[in-house]
Amino acid sequence: MPDTLTTTDPRTGIASDTGIRPTSADDVAAIVARAKAAAPEIASQGRAWRAELLESLADALEERADALAAIAEAETGLTSARLSGELGRTTFQLRLFAEAVREGGFLEAAIDHAAHTAVGPQPDVRRMLVPIGPVAVFGSSNFPFAFSVPGGDTASALAGGNPVVAKAHSAHPLTSKAAFEALQEGARRAGAPRGTIGIVFGQQAGTELVGHPDVAAVGFTGSLGAAQHLRAAIEARQVPIPFYGELQSVNPLIITEAALQARSAEIAAALSVSVTASGGQLCTKPGIAFIPAGVAADRFAAELATAVAATDTAVLLNERVLASFSTAEEALEGAPGVTSLTGTAESSAEGFAVSPRVLRVRAREVTPEHTIEAFGPLVLVVDYEDQEELVDTLAKVPDSLTATLHIEDADLDGIRHLLPALQKASGRVVFNGYPTGVRVSWAQHHGGPWPATNTLHTSVGVTAIRRFLRPLAWQNAPEALLPEELRDGYSGIPRRVDGVLVVAH
Amino acid sequence: MPDTLTTTDPRTGIASDTGIRPTSADDVAAIVARAKAAAPEIASQGRAWRAELLESLADALEERADALAAIAEAETGLTSARLSGELGRTTFQLRLFAEAVREGGFLEAAIDHAAHTAVGPQPDVRRMLVPIGPVAVFGSSNFPFAFSVPGGDTASALAGGNPVVAKAHSAHPLTSKAAFEALQEGARRAGAPRGTIGIVFGQQAGTELVGHPDVAAVGFTGSLGAAQHLRAAIEARQVPIPFYGELQSVNPLIITEAALQARSAEIAAALSVSVTASGGQLCTKPGIAFIPAGVAADRFAAELATAVAATDTAVLLNERVLASFSTAEEALEGAPGVTSLTGTAESSAEGFAVSPRVLRVRAREVTPEHTIEAFGPLVLVVDYEDQEELVDTLAKVPDSLTATLHIEDADLDGIRHLLPALQKASGRVVFNGYPTGVRVSWAQHHGGPWPATNTLHTSVGVTAIRRFLRPLAWQNAPEALLPEELRDGYSGIPRRVDGVLVVAH
Repeated sequence: MPDTLTTTDPRTGIASDTGIRPTSADDVAAIVARAKAAAPEIASQGRAWRAELLESLADALEERADALAAIAEAETGLTSARLSGELGRTTFQLRLFAEAVREGGFLEAAIDHAAHTAVGPQPDVRRMLVPIGPVAVFGSSNFPFAFSVPGGDTASALAGGNPVVAKAHSAHPLTSKAAFEALQEGARRAGAPRGTIGIVFGQQAGTELVGHPDVAAVGFTGSLGAAQHLRAAIEARQVPIPFYGELQSVNPLIITEAALQARSAEIAAALSVSVTASGGQLCTKPGIAFIPAGVAADRFAAELATAVAATDTAVLLNERVLASFSTAEEALEGAPGVTSLTGTAESSAEGFAVSPRVLRVRAREVTPEHTIEAFGPLVLVVDYEDQEELVDTLAKVPDSLTATLHIEDADLDGIRHLLPALQKASGRVVFNGYPTGVRVSWAQHHGGPWPATNTLHTSVGVTAIRRFLRPLAWQNAPEALLPEELRDGYSGIPRRVDGVLVVAH
Repeated sequence: MPDTLTTTDPRTGIASDTGIRPTSADDVAAIVARAKAAAPEIASQGRAWRAELLESLADALEERADALAAIAEAETGLTSARLSGELGRTTFQLRLFAEAVREGGFLEAAIDHAAHTAVGPQPDVRRMLVPIGPVAVFGSSNFPFAFSVPGGDTASALAGGNPVVAKAHSAHPLTSKAAFEALQEGARRAGAPRGTIGIVFGQQAGTELVGHPDVAAVGFTGSLGAAQHLRAAIEARQVPIPFYGELQSVNPLIITEAALQARSAEIAAALSVSVTASGGQLCTKPGIAFIPAGVAADRFAAELATAVAATDTAVLLNERVLASFSTAEEALEGAPGVTSLTGTAESSAEGFAVSPRVLRVRAREVTPEHTIEAFGPLVLVVDYEDQEELVDTLAKVPDSLTATLHIEDADLDGIRHLLPALQKASGRVVFNGYPTGVRVSWAQHHGGPWPATNTLHTSVGVTAIRRFLRPLAWQNAPEALLPEELRDGYSGIPRRVDGVLVVAH
């Protein structure tokens, strides 16, 4: 085991010592034990307190915003503006969850009073969702705040009333530590028990964490490879637990003939931003764009290539992302029928920088070789001859987080038949926009069929809390032993009473 | 591969030929292909039609109620009265799901209009749950209707808009076939596509079914062993799918000193019924009963043993249940400190009949050897000296579907500290009642921590539909391309609009 962890500045490629030791097995056990002890304490607090806790965490992060962004910039190569925006999104998310916790609909409270029914007399049954227990959170490299230690998994697990143990990302250990310290301070101010939020460092500690019998669920955002390593550790457990992984996504984008005629330059410019922003390192980056073959397609492809080539070289997050991007870039460029519209790949002089790329191929040549994810600033433009070819080629794209359509009013009937396939193959269908920039809101869904995620859950938006809750029913319980939210006289949350939804009043 | 499947009358142990051939691999593929083809057709129908489909299925089952019960009686050994009741519960369930489909709250529809927020301008995002695709249903031997071909998994998968392919249970193939034919007739009358409901026969066909790439989820009720066989087949899939298994459960029941003083004879009589009804072959049968040690305990134990011994011998469902019960019975009877209150085990002269049993042990002697599930008419009475010993011994009971408390008003404060552990270790806490006889209703939850189920889902009650749905979001979608339920003007279902829950009007 190495003495201490290193961190690397992607802008220079220079590694330095963090002074952080990998967490030992004993310490992992102690941290989980504290989380386990905290679980009933947190669960027994009312929703009002839990909302205050989330707001206190947001406050503590905001107070340290500049320092956090500076630390993250040196570890991720993302720009200061992007990181400040991301931290704002992260605290916005914590506050939205606080609002949801106060509102209480997420408890799915239901009361069936004792009744004589068509199948005889039936007892009083009441149900609501309760916390599941300590949650292990594995963040991603590309969102050092919003999908890492203080991110959506942590916020939604805490909103559900569960303690969290985060695994610090190996590519941003100092950011993880600083964010953790901010959360710890916010939790302390709210009077939360010590085990409310914990952190472990090092890959081995992460494996021990997911194998620990007192860990109740795992939230993960990252690569399919890392996910499979964790899944193996989870499958080896005596008691299975849910693994919520958000893994990879190609995100097809389709432009109709009418849309290309009407908005070619506009789409090319905006698509270029969507492909290259944050170095193209977004899980929702459109990686493959379908355009109707013809003269307009040539013009569009040229406009897109010009816009993409005009962006700065992208500094990738770390050596692993660089290696994976380079491999994918090379594979795509070498795949049959592919031409490059932005010159060939070139190795950068310094750090982990790469040039953004636009590649192009005809739909009839597309095979699974062409539909791999290149996590970085690259888009493959695919020319389709007709609707039939479009449909056939789309079927070769792996299921994704998103699918995007650029259409005009005249297309509404013509593209209707495309929708079922796009809806089946994705978790969010975007019209006349771009899949990047995921709104954090009540109705958002961020997930999709495998290998995007495991289909049934979202890792963004209020319903992300649902992952870390389980239903519990009480039969004929004395009023005094019921949770407040399930007592007859309570009216502070929406509830389903004898089958009828009743809003709070 | 055997030519045709056999069925055995558990009352006589005599096997006979069913004339049913195991479904070939080609036929499994063809049946799943029909289900896949039916999926978009079903999904594209409105909720009103889907509710009518469920009611048509209920009608068709009711029309054949007597014939179905007679076939099931010969294959399960369950009484005609019990089977008629079960069929009533099954049709009640289908009608309740129809009601839920009409009400529409299960769609969890949410609309966030485009807005300027604290983190900038945001697009219009709308979300609801959509069908997941063909569902494989593996029923249990102990509920040939309510948890088999026409049971809760089938009803909730169809309610969610998914086609179903059932695997006929090897212990009741003729019942499965007859129920399937009734469902098929009901589906035909409702104008449903042919692939709406399918059936396969034979273990190999079942394994092929869960491995088929077009199967989207598996509902299972049965033994841990059979579940692990299926889980292995599922884990070998390229694309993982959810496996909803309801497996085993010991269901602890606790009686306080005050309750024993107040209601000893009443509890003994009712517990005897709960332990022996349906031959004790209910997943919620209380398998271990904790009573406070002392003179009252001796009286209670004697009353319970008398009541249990007075019930008829129980005909177990099949040879496997008989073997598993006998093994568990022998292990429990041979475990340290266990005494029998109902004579010793004796082999029955005919069929798969066994004598109901009451065993007894002191809490201080209890080890994991004592807390295994005996699926059949057996209860282990455990004498506890004090609350501390009760808590320690409860911790040795595997997590279960249910936990039951018999208390008096005077106990309310005294037993409050017990609740967190009981709630953590079960999915339903029952007060002054019995866990058997699971109410089918909106608020019901039937599930529990592993190995009862996999914690997060229910297989009874309206929310069982949630297992077979997945969230889908639409961003900036033209009104004409949105599902009716997500259009601005629609008000037929409850929806969350800009964070505010709005009931139907």
